[in-house]
Amino acid sequence: MIEHGGNIYKFARILHREPSQILDFSANINPLGFPQGLKEYLYHSLDSIICYPDPDYVELKRLIAEYINLSPENILVGNGAIELISLSIQTIGKDAIIPIPTFSEYARICKVNKLNVEYFPMGKGFKLDIEVLIDRLRTKRHGMLILCNPNNPTGGFIDITPLRFLLEETAKLDIFVLLDEAFVEFTEDYPKDSGVNLVKHYPNLCVIRCFTKFFGLPGMRLGYGVAGKEFIDRLKERALPWSVNTLADLAGRYVLKDVEFMEKTREFIKSQRRFLLEELSSIEWIHPYPSQANFILAKIDIDSSVLENYLLKKGILIRNCGNFEGLDRSHIRLAVKDHNSNKRLIDELKSFSNI
Amino acid sequence: MIEHGGNIYKFARILHREPSQILDFSANINPLGFPQGLKEYLYHSLDSIICYPDPDYVELKRLIAEYINLSPENILVGNGAIELISLSIQTIGKDAIIPIPTFSEYARICKVNKLNVEYFPMGKGFKLDIEVLIDRLRTKRHGMLILCNPNNPTGGFIDITPLRFLLEETAKLDIFVLLDEAFVEFTEDYPKDSGVNLVKHYPNLCVIRCFTKFFGLPGMRLGYGVAGKEFIDRLKERALPWSVNTLADLAGRYVLKDVEFMEKTREFIKSQRRFLLEELSSIEWIHPYPSQANFILAKIDIDSSVLENYLLKKGILIRNCGNFEGLDRSHIRLAVKDHNSNKRLIDELKSFSNI
Repeated sequence: MIEHGGNIYKFARILHREPSQILDFSANINPLGFPQGLKEYLYHSLDSIICYPDPDYVELKRLIAEYINLSPENILVGNGAIELISLSIQTIGKDAIIPIPTFSEYARICKVNKLNVEYFPMGKGFKLDIEVLIDRLRTKRHGMLILCNPNNPTGGFIDITPLRFLLEETAKLDIFVLLDEAFVEFTEDYPKDSGVNLVKHYPNLCVIRCFTKFFGLPGMRLGYGVAGKEFIDRLKERALPWSVNTLADLAGRYVLKDVEFMEKTREFIKSQRRFLLEELSSIEWIHPYPSQANFILAKIDIDSSVLENYLLKKGILIRNCGNFEGLDRSHIRLAVKDHNSNKRLIDELKSFSNI
Repeated sequence: MIEHGGNIYKFARILHREPSQILDFSANINPLGFPQGLKEYLYHSLDSIICYPDPDYVELKRLIAEYINLSPENILVGNGAIELISLSIQTIGKDAIIPIPTFSEYARICKVNKLNVEYFPMGKGFKLDIEVLIDRLRTKRHGMLILCNPNNPTGGFIDITPLRFLLEETAKLDIFVLLDEAFVEFTEDYPKDSGVNLVKHYPNLCVIRCFTKFFGLPGMRLGYGVAGKEFIDRLKERALPWSVNTLADLAGRYVLKDVEFMEKTREFIKSQRRFLLEELSSIEWIHPYPSQANFILAKIDIDSSVLENYLLKKGILIRNCGNFEGLDRSHIRLAVKDHNSNKRLIDELKSFSNI
């Protein structure tokens, strides 16, 4: 298994601490947590675990459809975004091109399923050059392009105009586009730039979304795929029954009704992302990249493992990006958290400068 | 998707009732529910959904290992038994032979993964004849044998002596055995006859277990695979991260400590299974098969759909076995429930006789 962020358990075991005592900047979860009232609601729903979930997830799909302005036939729910990513890759079943650096599971899942992977290194500043990418696609016709937007771990974002252009060109080349939008709800102009607005026009597109990051529910494991009906039907043929836990089903339905939470989150992330970016930029040895997500990638002038260990001793966990293809041990990723936590991180980083 | 038991939601929608108003004999869940105190425990643990689950599930695997008297390296946890079945079939990756009638997902998953399936019809009374099966395996060497024990939907059971013989012979023939033990904890002499006692000696065996049936947690989606370390390591390479929900992880750990619940369940099922078998046998047009599980298959002298619809109008859902390969619409499967429910079912069946 690949090491990912958010493994507070491993570090708690190493440090002989409780997982809750670790200030975790390695997982990119909404710092506001999940919508209020969810705990009470789940408490009153706990009896439901004695029944199988609705295998058709009718009500959950209806609410997701409403949320993204599509129809339930365009949606398949699953056990976190990762299950939908795996299911989609198996269903598309063609060799892939993957712009890097990005989430490492795409390539791992392709390889496990015996699909070849070509990495396409992003340009300077990790800004994806669509024109160059399309040229590459024209030269060697891959069957599948996998994109993360906004991209994890760089925070870079392709908005709707270049995205539409990309879909137009890939459609001509018979390339299927798998678009992971795990973080899209944190972007400035959401929902304007989301790929879900394009699935009706491009049958070669499947968008992956989740409740993990924006709705603060990583423990729940709830994600969904959005695509034209034909592709969703193909996914369904392969999908396993009851893949979403009953409480995850209920939690998903509950949080989709809290519009205030969504607006508050976007405002909050916007201001804290700005704060963190400004503060990081003010530290001489840290060079952050612009981000539209709830995390920031930074190049640092020291070995990321040295910094990681220094901060761990202070009870702070960051994402050492040394194991990302296309990055090295001069890169770290930091989640945008609540103001006090962000402030504490900045203070520790500044104190590190003085060693 | 294949229709399975337990879809109270679909029938509630058809009948315009609440799912909880349906008396469900179609899903084979422990009639005692889940262990006491679990709801309170989960309530106090609800904050955990804000964190990713431990990707290594260290504590859960430690407790499962203790429960089945093996080591954590022999265990992989997953999103219900079904995820482990799918993962194992993909990992073994060879053509399969499947004794029928049995759980239909095995064949479906093989076919989705482009693996050929040969059905091996069980003999008279649905008793699997191991000698005949081995003869068949010798003639045409399949790579994988998939068995459900006790078998769903027949209730038939192979105990440890023929099971060991089967593993010995399949090992010689280089055939991998996937053994689904979703219902094994309901058998009379549990844990004596479980295949988990054999994984140390047979590297060609993987046993699938779950918390769904015996611990009354179908909504939680928690299962595990048990095998030699080498096969578990191969499964891990393919497995997706965080496949078990945080609350399912906690629920699993909680229920494994309740030995009293386990003993009480076995006593209860034993006596109610006997009651139901005797009562069913007393009805002229119903011919139940012996069972070691918490359900009973019966041949009936009428069309199962007619009976299904009659009982549905009374708010009772049974499993029409018409869509099981190897069965037809003269078969139904009935869960062993609490005494009052079982009594009510018997009364309705008797009243049907008088129409």
